[in-house]
Amino acid sequence: MASTWVPDVSPDTPFSLANIPFGIVSSSADPAPHAAIAIGIHVLDLKALSSHATFHDVFPALKNHPGIFSKPTLNEFAALGRPVHREIRKTIQDLLSSETSRPEALKDNAELREKALLSQRNVKMHLPMNIGDYTDFYAGFHHAYSVGALFRGPQKALQPNYTHLPVGYHGRASSIVVSGTPIKRPVGQIIIDPTAEPKQPTTAPSRRLDIELELGCFISTPNEMGSSIKVTDAEDHIFGYVILNDWSARDIQTWEYIPLGPFNGKNFATTISPWVVLADALDPFRTKCLDNWTPLQPYLNENKKESIFDIELQVDLITPQGDATTISTTSSKYLMWSFPQMIAHHSLGGCPMRTGDILGTGTISGPTPNEKGSLLELSEGGKKDVMLYGMDVRRFLKDGDTVVMRGICGKPGEKVGFGDCVGRILAATPVQ
Amino acid sequence: MASTWVPDVSPDTPFSLANIPFGIVSSSADPAPHAAIAIGIHVLDLKALSSHATFHDVFPALKNHPGIFSKPTLNEFAALGRPVHREIRKTIQDLLSSETSRPEALKDNAELREKALLSQRNVKMHLPMNIGDYTDFYAGFHHAYSVGALFRGPQKALQPNYTHLPVGYHGRASSIVVSGTPIKRPVGQIIIDPTAEPKQPTTAPSRRLDIELELGCFISTPNEMGSSIKVTDAEDHIFGYVILNDWSARDIQTWEYIPLGPFNGKNFATTISPWVVLADALDPFRTKCLDNWTPLQPYLNENKKESIFDIELQVDLITPQGDATTISTTSSKYLMWSFPQMIAHHSLGGCPMRTGDILGTGTISGPTPNEKGSLLELSEGGKKDVMLYGMDVRRFLKDGDTVVMRGICGKPGEKVGFGDCVGRILAATPVQ
Repeated sequence: MASTWVPDVSPDTPFSLANIPFGIVSSSADPAPHAAIAIGIHVLDLKALSSHATFHDVFPALKNHPGIFSKPTLNEFAALGRPVHREIRKTIQDLLSSETSRPEALKDNAELREKALLSQRNVKMHLPMNIGDYTDFYAGFHHAYSVGALFRGPQKALQPNYTHLPVGYHGRASSIVVSGTPIKRPVGQIIIDPTAEPKQPTTAPSRRLDIELELGCFISTPNEMGSSIKVTDAEDHIFGYVILNDWSARDIQTWEYIPLGPFNGKNFATTISPWVVLADALDPFRTKCLDNWTPLQPYLNENKKESIFDIELQVDLITPQGDATTISTTSSKYLMWSFPQMIAHHSLGGCPMRTGDILGTGTISGPTPNEKGSLLELSEGGKKDVMLYGMDVRRFLKDGDTVVMRGICGKPGEKVGFGDCVGRILAATPVQ
Repeated sequence: MASTWVPDVSPDTPFSLANIPFGIVSSSADPAPHAAIAIGIHVLDLKALSSHATFHDVFPALKNHPGIFSKPTLNEFAALGRPVHREIRKTIQDLLSSETSRPEALKDNAELREKALLSQRNVKMHLPMNIGDYTDFYAGFHHAYSVGALFRGPQKALQPNYTHLPVGYHGRASSIVVSGTPIKRPVGQIIIDPTAEPKQPTTAPSRRLDIELELGCFISTPNEMGSSIKVTDAEDHIFGYVILNDWSARDIQTWEYIPLGPFNGKNFATTISPWVVLADALDPFRTKCLDNWTPLQPYLNENKKESIFDIELQVDLITPQGDATTISTTSSKYLMWSFPQMIAHHSLGGCPMRTGDILGTGTISGPTPNEKGSLLELSEGGKKDVMLYGMDVRRFLKDGDTVVMRGICGKPGEKVGFGDCVGRILAATPVQ
């Protein structure tokens, strides 16, 4: 990988020249949200770049899409499809490379550099996409197994359908927020004494507020209603990836979810990392899904293709006092189902996927106790303390806690990562 | 109620002067979707009406919203809130009334009448709203009871949470279509032999394709994330109502829904009637929810207010040969939970409702065998034939069947109804 002329790009940055993730930013100079990419501790403002006279010579694929980087979301860009994303990313990599073939287009143009290359500290990040529908799956095998074992014992840990299809449910699109947005603890109906019969709910702030460490995937090109997307074509419908924290109120969920699934236990908030890592950027980190011993239905069969990614994932919990503890380190390789399989299954009956739709993997956990992607697992069902720095402990989240999720892969100088997916818990609104 | 000067308004029309439902139409003369209201067999094209010089004198509340009726959805109008909807509806009722106070504004203006008063035959209906999120509840008590009894027996028919909270789940917004859109039978994983162990799925067209008769409600004004909507304020957040058919593939649903709820069994299609009946138009038909013997949590307590509606509902099944049979007649009064309760519950944890979001009641069934809102109930779990005209029978839908749902209330000449909510079943795409 070539080096970049952009200053202060550390070998450890998740935003190396090998990445070029897309996001939506605003600044005091240009407060209308618009497109940018991240490089080191800077962003390259694509709206500013596209104001330059040579822009359409440098990016001929965008000739018929004037203002595409001035829009408040990346949807229009995502809809152009993977070959265009690939070309644009390559051109940006060239522009930022020390040996760029077009030094006049940015590197040697001090005025444009001044306008377009901004410190990340000076921009605000926004939701990158206008999200039509959000679907959350349950593809993390070790999570499904360990949560199932907690509630039903190891013999019946997995439901009979689990290895036959990627189980998923529809989530709430309106409460997806960008990293950094504070998360208010939800109020809901909870059962304080689970042994009492009949069950008596109380309306109160959740006492079992949890995280779910996930990978999210944005849809680029849609399918028509009534048609399905083949598993072998599904990668062409993927724009890129984000880290996703599907905040969960376990006590609300436990009481409400029978028989129609999670609802208020999930719909109060979902946080995503701000930068969309393009499918091509993750291509070098492909690996196979976890072995599935069940013969697959033909529409799900990828012939053991390497269709998921080995991304190092990490969860830090920062107490209100500011002490940080890494409570989990795991990998996105612990999935039994790939995004192409999820997309093929989701569209099997003709359900239309639209540009900007997001799919989540479900919680990603590894096989060992320190690799769990939720406090429910780390605390063994809320029965064991998770030790934090400074002799503090948690089973679930306290008000004032901050959770930081990160994902990264690659060698120093060529790292591909997502940046932080952060949320801090605010106290619930008092129940009247 | 005054009479109207509009020709051919039959006493039995669902679109009397007492209704004035809003929709989105297009015509060969103006193919860009835009707003209209229905009156008898005509529509009043509100875009054409608003082209008239006196429009903002007649509708002063819209002075700061130029072009609001030229938009392809009603979202911007819905967001203005109920007092504005009330005023606009009253003004339209006056314009269309035989004793209108402003005859010059439409009644006596032949040129404008010619442009704005169109036959329904000459317009195409479109989805009335841009729908952000779709939530489907389970508020039909007799449906929940009879389906529960089918699967678990009468003693355990209702789950313990059923009378404590309005159970609901997130549906799929992308596959909501306007009445008249053909519905392709979905392919999915189904269990052909339910007695075999272990369970062996087959990928095949659904054999148990069903309907769900529901009332839908559109949100007008939003709440901020982290805040909730009080049950006593919730009516102010409702724009209006539609009939909703939540097509369901029972065999796909049965296999997939544990533990996260319905997914592909539902997300292939949901049909809504094209006209949004404003909250004010249904006001005279209010009634109380079915008695709930469980003391309610305070946030759900409406003090027995009349917060649901007694709308006569009817489901017709038309065979491919064209024979029509009314397979169910029931009423929207058979609900245990009202829309204000659903909204208060949905937003309790801070989930944001947005303008254009839709909530469904869940299947509405009455207590007797002919009042059921799904074939699952009418056929007693697929075990009994439903008799059709011409000695034909059904347990679930056949290819080529057409389902028509209707809802109406009020006296002849003052009827308030929704128009037809129609869908015809197309054969599935063959499985490869």
